[in-house]
Amino acid sequence: MSKSEQLSARQKAHKAKMAKHKSKVDASIAAAQTERGIALLMTGNGKGKTSSAMGMVIRALGYEQKVGVVQFIKGAQDCGEGNFIRTHCPAVDFYQMGTGFTWNTQDIESDTKAAERTWEYAARMLSDEQYNLVVLDELTYMLGYQYLDKDKVINAIEKRPTEQSVVVTGRGGGRKLRAVMDTISDVKDIRHGYRHGLKARKGVDY
Amino acid sequence: MSKSEQLSARQKAHKAKMAKHKSKVDASIAAAQTERGIALLMTGNGKGKTSSAMGMVIRALGYEQKVGVVQFIKGAQDCGEGNFIRTHCPAVDFYQMGTGFTWNTQDIESDTKAAERTWEYAARMLSDEQYNLVVLDELTYMLGYQYLDKDKVINAIEKRPTEQSVVVTGRGGGRKLRAVMDTISDVKDIRHGYRHGLKARKGVDY
Repeated sequence: MSKSEQLSARQKAHKAKMAKHKSKVDASIAAAQTERGIALLMTGNGKGKTSSAMGMVIRALGYEQKVGVVQFIKGAQDCGEGNFIRTHCPAVDFYQMGTGFTWNTQDIESDTKAAERTWEYAARMLSDEQYNLVVLDELTYMLGYQYLDKDKVINAIEKRPTEQSVVVTGRGGGRKLRAVMDTISDVKDIRHGYRHGLKARKGVDY
Repeated sequence: MSKSEQLSARQKAHKAKMAKHKSKVDASIAAAQTERGIALLMTGNGKGKTSSAMGMVIRALGYEQKVGVVQFIKGAQDCGEGNFIRTHCPAVDFYQMGTGFTWNTQDIESDTKAAERTWEYAARMLSDEQYNLVVLDELTYMLGYQYLDKDKVINAIEKRPTEQSVVVTGRGGGRKLRAVMDTISDVKDIRHGYRHGLKARKGVDY
């Protein structure tokens, strides 16, 4: 086979492969006809859950949608997304729990109070149809530690306005929460820099 | 046991658990002493790879870092993150390949040219130490389809400035690319809305 024949054969095979892929994707898209807000869980041990939620914030803002962000746990430590949203996205309703990582406080009573106080912001957003997207960052830990009542939280997510999307992040999440989610991504930690000595990086990790 | 005794027992167990967790986290943090840019791969079939990279963009911007974003594949279709970055983040150097999804074009020659042209922007960023963060969105497909030379790409990522972080997204990625990555997250598709009929959602999926 000459070089141009090889190229032509490769092109043919490629076209066939792409056409097959396209028809599969087209079929899935055609079949998906329900339009409503999506409940999404970003879970797992790997890096990328909170940052994914933050990417969806700017996606929604790119269509001038109304966005609310509630960060459980975060607030005591510096974080890039917090700096950015406060400075550049005045239209976003943004609330951080502000007690620092829970394993630094280790006080079930004050943590429960902080979680309940923070939940009030989330609950208000989940019952307000003005919000197109509500991010509940690290919410799963509040359920795992029993700082918040699981049924109350799940009920609020289920009963939210039809057009509203909600993104929940954090490890775990539990069977009951998963049951009300439309999309679940489990971010597997295949490799993590800190295990071979790399310090958490400003602008990437926080 | 009285109710207050039960609470006290729960608190004790909780404190012990949290303290153990804290000492583990502290030990990992103390052990991680190397400060340099991180090479991160967000891969897997699940939802959240590109949005995670976009979240890191706003994290970096939250510290007024210099950011470059190159989106392979994207550009022909509307996308929220593109709208947002162009409108609200003039300091970000942003380039989209603009040929539309490759399974819509199915032409190996024009796709290769578009990929090469797009790669030039990426290569320039990867050799410029002014950039703190470079995002190469959906780059893996360019390698998988052999639109770009794998060795050239991997070499550019390896030889980038020490302080520069790079985030690569896309399914697959291959053994050679993975070998030069500090952190790898594999986003597993546990559940996806479109499989039970949910249309892709503006502000969440694109």
